[in-house]
Amino acid sequence: MLEQNFLAFINDNQLFGTSDHLLLAVSGGIDSMVMADLFYRTNQPFSIAHVNFGLRGADSEADALFVQNKAEHYGVPFHLTHFDTTAIAAERGISIQMAARELRYTWFDQLLEDYKYACVATAHHLNDVLETLLLNLTRGTGLAGLHGIASKQNGIVRPLLFATRSQLAMYAEEQKLLYREDSSNSDDKYARNRIRHHIVPVLTELNSGLWQTLPRTIERLRAAEVLMQAELKRSWKETILQDGNQITLPADKLQALAELTFQLAEWLKPFGFADDQVKHMIESLNQSVGQVFESSTHRISHERIGLLLEPLPIPMDYEITLVDWPNGLVAVAGAFALAIDEIEKTGDFNLPTDSSIACLDADRLTFPLTIRPWRQGDRFRPLGLNGHKLVSDLLNDLKVSRTEREQTAVLLSGGQIAWVIGRRIDHRFRVKAETKRIGRFSLTSTMDFPPNRS
Amino acid sequence: MLEQNFLAFINDNQLFGTSDHLLLAVSGGIDSMVMADLFYRTNQPFSIAHVNFGLRGADSEADALFVQNKAEHYGVPFHLTHFDTTAIAAERGISIQMAARELRYTWFDQLLEDYKYACVATAHHLNDVLETLLLNLTRGTGLAGLHGIASKQNGIVRPLLFATRSQLAMYAEEQKLLYREDSSNSDDKYARNRIRHHIVPVLTELNSGLWQTLPRTIERLRAAEVLMQAELKRSWKETILQDGNQITLPADKLQALAELTFQLAEWLKPFGFADDQVKHMIESLNQSVGQVFESSTHRISHERIGLLLEPLPIPMDYEITLVDWPNGLVAVAGAFALAIDEIEKTGDFNLPTDSSIACLDADRLTFPLTIRPWRQGDRFRPLGLNGHKLVSDLLNDLKVSRTEREQTAVLLSGGQIAWVIGRRIDHRFRVKAETKRIGRFSLTSTMDFPPNRS
Repeated sequence: MLEQNFLAFINDNQLFGTSDHLLLAVSGGIDSMVMADLFYRTNQPFSIAHVNFGLRGADSEADALFVQNKAEHYGVPFHLTHFDTTAIAAERGISIQMAARELRYTWFDQLLEDYKYACVATAHHLNDVLETLLLNLTRGTGLAGLHGIASKQNGIVRPLLFATRSQLAMYAEEQKLLYREDSSNSDDKYARNRIRHHIVPVLTELNSGLWQTLPRTIERLRAAEVLMQAELKRSWKETILQDGNQITLPADKLQALAELTFQLAEWLKPFGFADDQVKHMIESLNQSVGQVFESSTHRISHERIGLLLEPLPIPMDYEITLVDWPNGLVAVAGAFALAIDEIEKTGDFNLPTDSSIACLDADRLTFPLTIRPWRQGDRFRPLGLNGHKLVSDLLNDLKVSRTEREQTAVLLSGGQIAWVIGRRIDHRFRVKAETKRIGRFSLTSTMDFPPNRS
Repeated sequence: MLEQNFLAFINDNQLFGTSDHLLLAVSGGIDSMVMADLFYRTNQPFSIAHVNFGLRGADSEADALFVQNKAEHYGVPFHLTHFDTTAIAAERGISIQMAARELRYTWFDQLLEDYKYACVATAHHLNDVLETLLLNLTRGTGLAGLHGIASKQNGIVRPLLFATRSQLAMYAEEQKLLYREDSSNSDDKYARNRIRHHIVPVLTELNSGLWQTLPRTIERLRAAEVLMQAELKRSWKETILQDGNQITLPADKLQALAELTFQLAEWLKPFGFADDQVKHMIESLNQSVGQVFESSTHRISHERIGLLLEPLPIPMDYEITLVDWPNGLVAVAGAFALAIDEIEKTGDFNLPTDSSIACLDADRLTFPLTIRPWRQGDRFRPLGLNGHKLVSDLLNDLKVSRTEREQTAVLLSGGQIAWVIGRRIDHRFRVKAETKRIGRFSLTSTMDFPPNRS
């Protein structure tokens, strides 16, 4: 019965193909042991991965050994790793749970890549879904917090999402499956237990069909969110005026928006702005201009035309040293990166017309190269100009915005400015007729507006 | 404290203005008695309406008297009505709760109209919202079932939606307010009590700030639904091909849709189709054409191009008799209506070119006029034709679809067909040079695609 539902669920949701080789995340607890057994009995190719987080001493060791034995029993490949989770969490200043989660998924990603597994499978089930929903509801949430985890997302599948905890327990009993007591170190453990033992039983008493209706409810909420995100994205595109790294949200368009507070909050969340800041931004629209709101990465200023969104100025103290051609992307700081390549100059070479790309004479450049913000007093010899010019004068002439001015950087070779990045190259480093090799530097934004919305 | 929050909530949500005169729905229970007292103390103009549903004999009478006395004490107008709810519910074959709800709101609407009240206020509070959310979640729901009732919708405001039941109880105690024991006859009473006494206390224990975060969660879900509905509507418009009462949903466009199952189900719900039918429709797209799905009002047929949505044929037995010019809209049956006016023929009169409008010589028409479906054997004299023609031949010549054929009706004057409605007028009833008065008949769809989405 559970086997049939398992296969039907995989098929209905197109989680993976019957010949795909999956990597199962197995803790040794009842849920993941049932999952592994279902894969085994349905002849789905799989390997097992177990993480020893080192959080429970000898018990952790015993869990690992238990899972390893089971993998040998099934005759499938077994991957084991060990982390000193407590130390890593302390070092990074994050919770043990968060550290465990990050370590686990980073390792899985590596295994997927190294062994070409189709995807990772975890043993989340319907009770997890309901408990998470209620936990999030209790704490305050949005739509995503209610529908919770998807059956397939980011290379992870959850093929038990159709089943309840008691169905899994029944299967384990029927198959006389052994398992280790789940001893989750979840920060939510207390809350989840309260929900599991005191709330869910009342809900199932009120509707004995709860476990049949829940997946449909969840599916409706998930679909609703996909549509809502599509509308958010469409509306963002129709609202904004973009000029490089500057986004203007015109006040008149904002005022005409349906659900302005919600939409603006959703749009600006990826840029680090909090709901309260958004509320104040909206209030500021009816006040005189000049108010500024900052997140850890971005700034919004209330200007005459509306709200201006920009990346925060890059910190003024960075200096990047290149000891050789990186032939790839070099992230500089905050908002920009350089793609740097050394290429042969061929007959059909044309100088770029885009000021965001600099082609320089590679043989004229001497390593180490330096990238740093421009400074007062910086001078260079602009291309085609017979003489020197202050960088500050160049920026004045180009009438760049305050933020752009603050963010302008220079590329130096042997102490000389070779490129005022994104603005003008230096005459001495230009590509000449006799140039053989070219250093090509392309300015790239690391900011995607809006940041990925799936 | 509660008073300030009450005023702030009304102001923040622009529920009504300080000089608006409201009609308060007051049962006599603690919630509505607190509401009335808050209106009184904040000097908001109001009247009180009480419904005696006659469900609890002498207790119901005592409730009514209690509320009446309070209205007199406040010196505000009092409206009272009485329904034999049990009898009406039995007569209509609906639940007592549903009957009570309908009777109550119909009466409120009447009072709003008669006394020009700004709106009706009901005493729903935050606990009601959470209980309804959990109840709907238990039974299976969508987004709307989670965010629940809005603070302002359809002429009803809920100015206590910011407050918890215990805040209202505290206010009642402080103000030494008297109230009658709420003895709701809700069908949900048992379930609500279980949720109230067994679930909500656990949730508030897990997050003591629950009542602060809940309104924000609810607001986010409500806003999410507005955006989702906007996307549903936009996507509907981009998908459909409409030709009168026929809507085609092209298969290729359907297959390319995000969240097809959900979107199709949401679109077709107002036309009476159930989720399971929608599932089968989608399956049918991969099968041979010909499958037909019917709701109580509409039909979907799987045709070569995709899904064809049409109103079900109008019942074949109607006959509408007009004894005089109605000068307004006459609903005929199901899918169509006629707008009928008698107008003077002026110098700049032009004959309509649209076959959905007939202009006839009013003096040639003799009342009573009759509107009925066409019948086999019906003949008329098409405009410009010197001789008679069978209506069936006309419809053949026009190559109308089967449904349109079945739905075609005729307008008769003195036993003669004056108009094959929407198709061709009769030559004898045409507007002539000497015509003085014109009877104008405009065919109008009673179907709005999609039906109103708020």
